[in-house]
Amino acid sequence: MTGRKEETLTNVTLLGNQGTEYAFSYNPSVLETFDNQHPNRDYFVKFNCPEFTTLCPKTHQPDFATIYISYIPDVKMVESKSLKLYLFSFRNHGDFHEDSVNTIMNDLIQLMDPRYIEVWGKFTPRGGISIDPYCNYGKKETRFEEMANYRLMNHDMYPETITNR
Amino acid sequence: MTGRKEETLTNVTLLGNQGTEYAFSYNPSVLETFDNQHPNRDYFVKFNCPEFTTLCPKTHQPDFATIYISYIPDVKMVESKSLKLYLFSFRNHGDFHEDSVNTIMNDLIQLMDPRYIEVWGKFTPRGGISIDPYCNYGKKETRFEEMANYRLMNHDMYPETITNR
Amino acid sequence: MTGRKEETLTNVTLLGNQGTEYAFSYNPSVLETFDNQHPNRDYFVKFNCPEFTTLCPKTHQPDFATIYISYIPDVKMVESKSLKLYLFSFRNHGDFHEDSVNTIMNDLIQLMDPRYIEVWGKFTPRGGISIDPYCNYGKKETRFEEMANYRLMNHDMYPETITNR
Amino acid sequence: MTGRKEETLTNVTLLGNQGTEYAFSYNPSVLETFDNQHPNRDYFVKFNCPEFTTLCPKTHQPDFATIYISYIPDVKMVESKSLKLYLFSFRNHGDFHEDSVNTIMNDLIQLMDPRYIEVWGKFTPRGGISIDPYCNYGKKETRFEEMANYRLMNHDMYPETITNR
Amino acid sequence: MTGRKEETLTNVTLLGNQGTEYAFSYNPSVLETFDNQHPNRDYFVKFNCPEFTTLCPKTHQPDFATIYISYIPDVKMVESKSLKLYLFSFRNHGDFHEDSVNTIMNDLIQLMDPRYIEVWGKFTPRGGISIDPYCNYGKKETRFEEMANYRLMNHDMYPETITNR
Amino acid sequence: MTGRKEETLTNVTLLGNQGTEYAFSYNPSVLETFDNQHPNRDYFVKFNCPEFTTLCPKTHQPDFATIYISYIPDVKMVESKSLKLYLFSFRNHGDFHEDSVNTIMNDLIQLMDPRYIEVWGKFTPRGGISIDPYCNYGKKETRFEEMANYRLMNHDMYPETITNR
Amino acid sequence: MTGRKEETLTNVTLLGNQGTEYAFSYNPSVLETFDNQHPNRDYFVKFNCPEFTTLCPKTHQPDFATIYISYIPDVKMVESKSLKLYLFSFRNHGDFHEDSVNTIMNDLIQLMDPRYIEVWGKFTPRGGISIDPYCNYGKKETRFEEMANYRLMNHDMYPETITNR
Amino acid sequence: MTGRKEETLTNVTLLGNQGTEYAFSYNPSVLETFDNQHPNRDYFVKFNCPEFTTLCPKTHQPDFATIYISYIPDVKMVESKSLKLYLFSFRNHGDFHEDSVNTIMNDLIQLMDPRYIEVWGKFTPRGGISIDPYCNYGKKETRFEEMANYRLMNHDMYPETITNR
Amino acid sequence: MTGRKEETLTNVTLLGNQGTEYAFSYNPSVLETFDNQHPNRDYFVKFNCPEFTTLCPKTHQPDFATIYISYIPDVKMVESKSLKLYLFSFRNHGDFHEDSVNTIMNDLIQLMDPRYIEVWGKFTPRGGISIDPYCNYGKKETRFEEMANYRLMNHDMYPETITNR
Amino acid sequence: MTGRKEETLTNVTLLGNQGTEYAFSYNPSVLETFDNQHPNRDYFVKFNCPEFTTLCPKTHQPDFATIYISYIPDVKMVESKSLKLYLFSFRNHGDFHEDSVNTIMNDLIQLMDPRYIEVWGKFTPRGGISIDPYCNYGKKETRFEEMANYRLMNHDMYPETITNR
Ligand SMILES: [Ca+2]
Ligand SMILES: [Ca+2]
Ligand SMILES: [Ca+2]
Ligand SMILES: [Ca+2]
Ligand SMILES: [Ca+2]
Ligand SMILES: [Ca+2]
Ligand SMILES: [Ca+2]
Ligand SMILES: [Ca+2]
Ligand SMILES: [Ca+2]
Ligand SMILES: [Ca+2]
Ligand SMILES: [Ca+2]
Ligand SMILES: [Ca+2]
Ligand SMILES: [Ca+2]
Ligand SMILES: [Ca+2]
Ligand SMILES: [Ca+2]
Ligand SMILES: [Ca+2]
Repeated sequence: MTGRKEETLTNVTLLGNQGTEYAFSYNPSVLETFDNQHPNRDYFVKFNCPEFTTLCPKTHQPDFATIYISYIPDVKMVESKSLKLYLFSFRNHGDFHEDSVNTIMNDLIQLMDPRYIEVWGKFTPRGGISIDPYCNYGKKETRFEEMANYRLMNHDMYPETITNR
Repeated sequence: MTGRKEETLTNVTLLGNQGTEYAFSYNPSVLETFDNQHPNRDYFVKFNCPEFTTLCPKTHQPDFATIYISYIPDVKMVESKSLKLYLFSFRNHGDFHEDSVNTIMNDLIQLMDPRYIEVWGKFTPRGGISIDPYCNYGKKETRFEEMANYRLMNHDMYPETITNR
Repeated sequence: MTGRKEETLTNVTLLGNQGTEYAFSYNPSVLETFDNQHPNRDYFVKFNCPEFTTLCPKTHQPDFATIYISYIPDVKMVESKSLKLYLFSFRNHGDFHEDSVNTIMNDLIQLMDPRYIEVWGKFTPRGGISIDPYCNYGKKETRFEEMANYRLMNHDMYPETITNR
Repeated sequence: MTGRKEETLTNVTLLGNQGTEYAFSYNPSVLETFDNQHPNRDYFVKFNCPEFTTLCPKTHQPDFATIYISYIPDVKMVESKSLKLYLFSFRNHGDFHEDSVNTIMNDLIQLMDPRYIEVWGKFTPRGGISIDPYCNYGKKETRFEEMANYRLMNHDMYPETITNR
Repeated sequence: MTGRKEETLTNVTLLGNQGTEYAFSYNPSVLETFDNQHPNRDYFVKFNCPEFTTLCPKTHQPDFATIYISYIPDVKMVESKSLKLYLFSFRNHGDFHEDSVNTIMNDLIQLMDPRYIEVWGKFTPRGGISIDPYCNYGKKETRFEEMANYRLMNHDMYPETITNR
Repeated sequence: MTGRKEETLTNVTLLGNQGTEYAFSYNPSVLETFDNQHPNRDYFVKFNCPEFTTLCPKTHQPDFATIYISYIPDVKMVESKSLKLYLFSFRNHGDFHEDSVNTIMNDLIQLMDPRYIEVWGKFTPRGGISIDPYCNYGKKETRFEEMANYRLMNHDMYPETITNR
Repeated sequence: MTGRKEETLTNVTLLGNQGTEYAFSYNPSVLETFDNQHPNRDYFVKFNCPEFTTLCPKTHQPDFATIYISYIPDVKMVESKSLKLYLFSFRNHGDFHEDSVNTIMNDLIQLMDPRYIEVWGKFTPRGGISIDPYCNYGKKETRFEEMANYRLMNHDMYPETITNR
Repeated sequence: MTGRKEETLTNVTLLGNQGTEYAFSYNPSVLETFDNQHPNRDYFVKFNCPEFTTLCPKTHQPDFATIYISYIPDVKMVESKSLKLYLFSFRNHGDFHEDSVNTIMNDLIQLMDPRYIEVWGKFTPRGGISIDPYCNYGKKETRFEEMANYRLMNHDMYPETITNR
Repeated sequence: MTGRKEETLTNVTLLGNQGTEYAFSYNPSVLETFDNQHPNRDYFVKFNCPEFTTLCPKTHQPDFATIYISYIPDVKMVESKSLKLYLFSFRNHGDFHEDSVNTIMNDLIQLMDPRYIEVWGKFTPRGGISIDPYCNYGKKETRFEEMANYRLMNHDMYPETITNR
Repeated sequence: MTGRKEETLTNVTLLGNQGTEYAFSYNPSVLETFDNQHPNRDYFVKFNCPEFTTLCPKTHQPDFATIYISYIPDVKMVESKSLKLYLFSFRNHGDFHEDSVNTIMNDLIQLMDPRYIEVWGKFTPRGGISIDPYCNYGKKETRFEEMANYRLMNHDMYPETITNR
């Protein structure tokens, strides 16, 4: 079979692994990376994650969200199965929506040192109101720092129609 | 449980509180805040509020809207259950659509002193016409003042399709 | 102008009336009727009412629903502006969703003595779950009684997709 | 050009006619027919008419609807341009929604003597409520009379979602 | 390669053929068949044909439709590329919508002698009205004749929403 | 009832008025204004008007459109019921689509002297083509003049999908 | 406040209760009921539950579903907050999709002894395939037993379009 | 963890297995079953399979479809990962759409001996036409044989709108 | 009737004309203009043309597209019925998609000498791929030349979702 | 037939060719070009390719995506049937999503030397997460290099809603 060589994937231990362990408490150490094969090009990778769930820190009731993560890689790229296990580790964790989204972005910056990254959470409603936090980041003293400001300034000028149904 | 510490939530008296009182007249004093844990970052929080209702000041008939509130916090953040009770207090209050949207934004500026905020109301039709007011604000003498002008200039260039059905 | 004669509308006191009073407590007496001009024909009339709101009897928080009412008239037909004022009177009234829908149908049976009627409420969620009660009725010892059983047996075999957004 | 022979269209005076006159008061006499070329087969023809408008008989405000007309022809079929002119003639006419729909069906029965016909009007809201009347008819003492009962019994068990937007 | 044997396709001369000729006048003789390999089973095959166009017999303006054809095969099945060429041959042909749909069904009955067949045309509007004819057929003195009556009786009780946009 | 004071509404004579007269010929004098209560803020008000109808100046056939009007008020604001009556007055008026949209904007500039305004008409098709004119305006020698140029340059780069159905 | 009397709600201990405990292992005992106030009428209640999550019994990866529950009550009705806590108790529980749906229905039959009930789970995909189990039940030796057979025979003849996006 | 016991899954060798082999030629032997735990109840299981691809037997070009499979189990149930591998084995296989759908159903009948089963394929277009075959089956001399006839008679009376885009 | 004066329409010979001739080969000379009545204002006019069809220059099979044309008029404006006849003249014409779109724009520049124009064709797929060419133009040495560059740079950053169904 | 001359198509060997060979391993040499007939104009061509499939390099399971390719041609343009065969050649090829998208763009740059190009892949989910890589390119030392940066900075600020269904 042509394509990706297996030797470029030695850091990837979870993908296709039969005995995957799921962590039931918040665990950023499960994240893994592989090498960007196109480091001379700036390009985007987006993860759509509609199966995110966590708990309210005060009432302990479950919260549900779709998390959208978009980034421009530098040297390292996050492997998607490890990302899945990382997001799973919020399952029994309690945090406000605004904090979860910032935590996810901080952990991915720590892991990959990306050129640019943004995280948008779209939560289901409680008491008739839903909350959608969005944060972003560009590497300091590069043009991506300016890009982060530009994208924040232009963020979500067409809020999607919400009816709670 | 990992996550938000309860001691950061001492101002939050309404969330999870069994004996919540609903105010039947306009009451901005019900709004509560908690501290922004990421004050070094500019990021957005959006509230989708599809259950807003008020009365016409002249005919007293009920009006219904979805209210979209987006802001960039500074030090304080509005707690969502108190926001719900605040919006509830318009239930038997009479105002024009254009005024309700401005009032909500003024009260939230007063409460949180945010870096940036915008409020968009999308009302159901009366007599075959519906009205959607939008206002925004950036903190004076910061780059968010310019951001408010920029977003107003680019506001709603793709009006959603309305058929009144 | 050709069309409906004004003399057939003498019972209709609310439509087009400038000084309409809105009742803030449950009030079925506001309902008015006019005469069916096609009593020899069985036909359906449906009211779509997306602006229904009431209160939870235990927590007093507001509930919102779209109410769909369909009926086959006999001699009398409900006038739509009076129906609007009647539904408004649930605004500060506390009831379970299942009870509101049954109450609306009972009041309309009492008012119009229709051949057939059905009422379906589709409420917004609380705590991640939404509730949609449906009831119907056919006049006893007519073929419409059998019609009610038939429509109940076939009710809602394709539940609409709900995502709480 | 192959296809319909012009000599089968001698009754069709309006289609393609440059000097069409529009009637500004209700005028069923404008309706024209042509001959059904498949009288040995029962088949349906549906007209979708989203540009119907009339006036309220009491307040004189304009009303708008989409009218859906479906029928099984017998000997005569209604020509679509004459149908358009007929529906135009309601433009300055005042009637309740329930009456308009019955009137349209009565006029088409009178014109075509169809085996089966049904008319469904879906109107835009007034005061937060929209009204959708539906009537049907099957030729007496044929199996189409039973068909009309059957279709009424099964009518609209999945009301379309209405949000008034 | 496993699968269909080439020797079962000897009648199929058009599929994959480089020098296909397109007929510019109505030409049912272009239709080809292949053998049903599951004649002991009653099953449906549907063709979705959104690229149908013909001419008005009176004004010669072009008409456009999506044609839906569903049938239960008996011994022969229509080959899809020949169906495409057949539908193409209406391109410069003039006929009323009601006639086109009946003609297509008649030609396919003649070709395949199917157990059951139905054809539904959904045309774009002219003068604000669109027309959607539907016809069907079941083989005489089989249970498919009754099936055709049953499906006609239940036809299109939920007309799709049309806005002309 | 808290909210808008009645004394700020003395110019508003039509809202809630029982004996409203509908003008059957083009009549901009029916338009009324009330005072902007937030003149120190630039904000948008949008009217969605899906019930606009006029006549073709050459064939006299009816035309239908949804009109979207967005503006930034200066001192005066148009009252919505008077806007409804104004748009009604095009009902028996003959004009090209491009002219209607320009006329509406000119009349509203004349009435309110707004900081910025734009009008977009989306008409239903005739002969398979629909026309959507858009015009805008910013007050001369203010930054809103530049805003008008900017919004024209960026206008409608994502045309909505049209199928004529 | 008019409406439901508090004394009819003595069994309802969870609704509006501040200190709700969430069970992290499967726990049907958390379910509570209240009395049906319309026992002489057959009517439907539907719960839409888009926030259901459980674990795969073999790989322990999380599964997500929307659960639709519809029933005709007899004497008792399930209270919705207790239903929420019950569904929460599947959060760390491992089961096949087909078993979860049957278990939920069995527990609700045990709890309420309803006249009729059905449960439909629509799960998100794993490996490109999603699974949607559906079961139903009618009380033995009543007409609801026949109703269950009838609804099974007619179940889901129009599968919703799935694209995995 | 509560839930399914591992000992009921001894036949399930592929689910969660790291070294899964993909068969590149048609291979029904890869299918595996597990035991139905609710054999006293008739209930439906549906598989949504939007990632089906095969080859044209004549031109060898790839074809793509969404396959919907619904069945009522008897003693055995097909395991979903083995179903995925089975459908994968059509990847380089050549067959007409009508044959693929019948083959899939025949193989699943052979495997599970279900009470009832149906398979619907919805293919992407070639030359402007798409083909959607549907077949079904009920166990001989049970009420499910009659159910298969009933569902065929009622099949797809509302064809989904297709635009080829 | 108020509105457009007939004397401004003397160039308009096709609109409302009974004996319209349809050209079966490519014919730009059929295009007609009328005078812009608002030449001091820059504004947009968009034509939505979902009924465009042409032939493949190599295989002669028919191609179908929706054509979107937007322009800012200078002195002359294209009359819509003549545009319809012009687009009809591609019906039996053979060209690549990229060429048709450029040809249409070139002919309209030649006809109207507009300030700005753009043409976007969205074709139906052949062999699983669809092609959507887009071109634009601004009058040389005006700010509209820069506008054309700007709009090309920003073109279609959100490609519509295509599934070929 | 008017239109494209056959002599401009001498490089086009695959379009309309009966005996097309499909390559089962990655093969960029199958790509063919034809000459741009509008080289003095900058314009876009977009290919929508919803039938892309490849294999995971580690697990060998199939992956599916819709690929969107947009470019501004210089001298050469890619012929669409050869593009189809090229994309087919990924069918049994193993690569990460991020690599496939970059490879496609690199091969098309090599083939056509376009002024600008971008490629966006939208893949179906694995384990609850889907991945959508996007890359772009502008010819070095032209304004299209800057255009690539600009479009990357503005990329996908409105991620489409993903529910995995
Ligand atoms: Ca929604
Ligand atoms: Ca929804
Ligand atoms: Ca409309
Ligand atoms: Ca909700
Ligand atoms: Ca609503
Ligand atoms: Ca709507
Ligand atoms: Ca439509
Ligand atoms: Ca149309
Ligand atoms: Ca449309
Ligand atoms: Ca989706
Ligand atoms: Ca089309
Ligand atoms: Ca599509
Ligand atoms: Ca697909
Ligand atoms: Ca489609
Ligand atoms: Ca979900
Ligand atoms: Ca989907």
